[in-house]
Amino acid sequence: MPSEQSKTPRSFLTTRDWSRAQIDALLDLAASFKQRDPGPLLRGKAVALVFFNPSLRTRTSMELGAWRLGAHAVVLEPGKGAWPIEFTDSAVMDGDAEEHAREVARVLSSYCDLIAVRKFPGFQDWSVDRRDEPIKALARHASVPVMNLETIEHPCQELAHALALRERLGSLQNRKYVLTWTYHPRPLNTAVANSALLIATKLGMDVTLLCPDERYLLDERYLGAARDNAAAQGGSLTISHDIDAAYEGADVVYAKSWGALPFYGNWAQEKPIRDANRHFIVDERKMALTNGALFGHCLPMRRNIKATDAVVDSPGSIIIEEAANRLPTQQAVMATLLGAKPTGAPSGVPITEHKEIVHA
Amino acid sequence: MPSEQSKTPRSFLTTRDWSRAQIDALLDLAASFKQRDPGPLLRGKAVALVFFNPSLRTRTSMELGAWRLGAHAVVLEPGKGAWPIEFTDSAVMDGDAEEHAREVARVLSSYCDLIAVRKFPGFQDWSVDRRDEPIKALARHASVPVMNLETIEHPCQELAHALALRERLGSLQNRKYVLTWTYHPRPLNTAVANSALLIATKLGMDVTLLCPDERYLLDERYLGAARDNAAAQGGSLTISHDIDAAYEGADVVYAKSWGALPFYGNWAQEKPIRDANRHFIVDERKMALTNGALFGHCLPMRRNIKATDAVVDSPGSIIIEEAANRLPTQQAVMATLLGAKPTGAPSGVPITEHKEIVHA
Amino acid sequence: MPSEQSKTPRSFLTTRDWSRAQIDALLDLAASFKQRDPGPLLRGKAVALVFFNPSLRTRTSMELGAWRLGAHAVVLEPGKGAWPIEFTDSAVMDGDAEEHAREVARVLSSYCDLIAVRKFPGFQDWSVDRRDEPIKALARHASVPVMNLETIEHPCQELAHALALRERLGSLQNRKYVLTWTYHPRPLNTAVANSALLIATKLGMDVTLLCPDERYLLDERYLGAARDNAAAQGGSLTISHDIDAAYEGADVVYAKSWGALPFYGNWAQEKPIRDANRHFIVDERKMALTNGALFGHCLPMRRNIKATDAVVDSPGSIIIEEAANRLPTQQAVMATLLGAKPTGAPSGVPITEHKEIVHA
Repeated sequence: MPSEQSKTPRSFLTTRDWSRAQIDALLDLAASFKQRDPGPLLRGKAVALVFFNPSLRTRTSMELGAWRLGAHAVVLEPGKGAWPIEFTDSAVMDGDAEEHAREVARVLSSYCDLIAVRKFPGFQDWSVDRRDEPIKALARHASVPVMNLETIEHPCQELAHALALRERLGSLQNRKYVLTWTYHPRPLNTAVANSALLIATKLGMDVTLLCPDERYLLDERYLGAARDNAAAQGGSLTISHDIDAAYEGADVVYAKSWGALPFYGNWAQEKPIRDANRHFIVDERKMALTNGALFGHCLPMRRNIKATDAVVDSPGSIIIEEAANRLPTQQAVMATLLGAKPTGAPSGVPITEHKEIVHA
Repeated sequence: MPSEQSKTPRSFLTTRDWSRAQIDALLDLAASFKQRDPGPLLRGKAVALVFFNPSLRTRTSMELGAWRLGAHAVVLEPGKGAWPIEFTDSAVMDGDAEEHAREVARVLSSYCDLIAVRKFPGFQDWSVDRRDEPIKALARHASVPVMNLETIEHPCQELAHALALRERLGSLQNRKYVLTWTYHPRPLNTAVANSALLIATKLGMDVTLLCPDERYLLDERYLGAARDNAAAQGGSLTISHDIDAAYEGADVVYAKSWGALPFYGNWAQEKPIRDANRHFIVDERKMALTNGALFGHCLPMRRNIKATDAVVDSPGSIIIEEAANRLPTQQAVMATLLGAKPTGAPSGVPITEHKEIVHA
Repeated sequence: MPSEQSKTPRSFLTTRDWSRAQIDALLDLAASFKQRDPGPLLRGKAVALVFFNPSLRTRTSMELGAWRLGAHAVVLEPGKGAWPIEFTDSAVMDGDAEEHAREVARVLSSYCDLIAVRKFPGFQDWSVDRRDEPIKALARHASVPVMNLETIEHPCQELAHALALRERLGSLQNRKYVLTWTYHPRPLNTAVANSALLIATKLGMDVTLLCPDERYLLDERYLGAARDNAAAQGGSLTISHDIDAAYEGADVVYAKSWGALPFYGNWAQEKPIRDANRHFIVDERKMALTNGALFGHCLPMRRNIKATDAVVDSPGSIIIEEAANRLPTQQAVMATLLGAKPTGAPSGVPITEHKEIVHA
């Protein structure tokens, strides 16, 4: 874990590399951007957005976030509009990949000032995927900062989520935060769940991880980092398989589905287990057990599968605010990585609602 | 039908919502943009271009049209670069769609000032497609204006076509306008045909719909709206299955192919009927029956299938002018929806040829 | 061959149309852009990038190169995000193509100031592909300049490569330049090899084309043009099938794989011949025979197939510099085609290293 006095990391790959103070500074900067247009803070800067997987929010918020600061984002889709890429050093490249991350990273570094990457895991072998090698290889070979747009963690979503919680709740210290597994027809990435544990514990909340049974626990790397965060920040991490007990008194319910790690790559075998747990859906009955909890989700979200319309459309639902916050928080990350500081930006600026947020 | 004094609609979904005066104002504004660069009228505005289907002209003209006015367009392709979308309220989302139009519309509204959508019908069930639900759902849930880039109507093409006609003919009142069905190997969308009826009648022309037989008539919604327009504007709507009679004395021949609605979804059954009508191709013999008619088509167009090279490359062919006019007319729509008025824009500006138009 | 006094061609389709003096002027202009930011030289200009095939470097360097000069690039992908295109005149378009190059070229000319095209050959029939008809058709019908982003030649890569050589070697006159065929699992385009012959001979180098046997010779058009260049510029063209003799004393080794033209379209038959020539890989033993040669490659490049890691990562490897040079050289082409001259640009500016180049 970084110390409070540590230097700003060169890249934004995981919030585990960023101290609590550094995360707070990013959130403060994002809040200031919402309060006052910072102008062309990144004038003339170029950003490569490398998407190995689909995106709506990330794509739009990165492209517009860069543009509103005077920068330009180029969208690249390797394997579709661009060449497939090899990430392993010393590989004899006689497979599908036409070029190596060494070249991609160095060439993009020559054209751009920042490289942002979305690369979902391969879903065949967790022992491979958990190394998060693709983005690490790009960051290792790039001479410019690299930003994670979701791999096996989703640190941008962490910031957007955290900012939405701060805007609604003020102080988050020791708020009860429930990360609940929910059903989804397909086995999904653990990235957002891993990230929820990281950010909620980093901000000092009392975090409950609710999932059907221990087969749905997250990787020990993330459970361990969450415990360390909790210890450092005066919060806690609790694991629960009891739905009602977990919801009891919650201030925040954050829903996410993911595939069980012990069945990673053997998804047909996991399917009936997942299917038997459709009742983990977030609904009004469960929400009634909480302390008027906010409902969060990272989007995209299947309605009436992960949460009922009544919950999703309730006043406590912050899903649109979270998504809207992707733009200013990612602007804050870009500006920080590129060393651009707004002139006369107040510290500790008051948090205000974003004018464009729609409470449906 | 909107009254002449009605307020400008929030969105540009169909010209049926826009009065004759409002349409004329859009055309005048577009003409003024061609005459004089309006400058960064939309500086700082962001536009989402949501393409569910391919595009060349629309994509290019929207992106450049926005850019020339100081705005920035983000191109999203749900199902390819972005997530598939559900449009039906209260759906239990256990199919392919990963997110709901409610979220898409609200999230894009938080990032952007305008959402433009291309979504072709599903071609399985006209009773479903005719509801035009996808764009309506997006418009209902968005908090910003929505612009139709072709669904089951193509109002942007209407404006570009109308401006090209005005530029060539001056007054359009009671000009003879023939919308002719033509052959195409595949059953196509009725959108451009529906739109041709709407705009030609709205501008007071004497409109003939020429098609092989009554199975190729357009939906009654559009025939009825066209009759209403004709009544209000002093024009007429005639249906004909007699090629020579229809071409006789025409001032404009507009070609379009579409699949017959009674066979909608049973396209194999319609195929031999369509194949038997290849002679509807626009050729020199038929054009010789007209009053030196202009030839229009919305593009893309299959040469020597829908019209012969001789017609397409004749001096009366306005296909390139129509396409070129997509840019200023769509700029006029964007500026109007976003309330941006050019300073000192003359009313009733003289129509001039666009300097970049190429008469090949 | 163009004379030294010839007018700047309207389009940049092949360097065969450009005189030595014109090529030198492009390289000088690119070098000046690297030395000093030329500012918004192309302010308000729009560029269409038409990609029929994937791209990373070309896409990024064109889009950012245009943007840094104040222009805007629109990326179109016919057959994916845009409609498939017919190139043959008078075609009866009842196949897959939905529109004709005539319309595409004229419509894009109405929206844009320059059209840049990547269109790889079809790999079925060299007698068809060697006509390079798609880009020629677009250039013929366009009313704006057209720029080749790789068809059966790759003139932009020529410039980037030449600038990297100039930066490293100074004068190139009578330097020994070896273009070596290398193995690749798939039969590749001859474009970069054709282009290497053209530019190396145009710059007066002593060029050796090294390939397994005469079946791997390039098209006589390119061999002939290279011989003509050599005669005009005081260099030479030698063909060799002897690896060690070819490498002996080389100043530059440029690696590229391509499919053998006699087997064009019958690739299964060529496969065992290609497979038997894996030993053409560029390795340290071969490089030790040279005069401390630079190693060049156009990227994407399969490591340990076309060249060993030791060679690729050696100090003499210029692959990243070549790629980085795509940006300023393409800017120079765009500025020249659009008649934009930087104010006060010195002639014969000294060549400096690009600050962002990374020697890994």
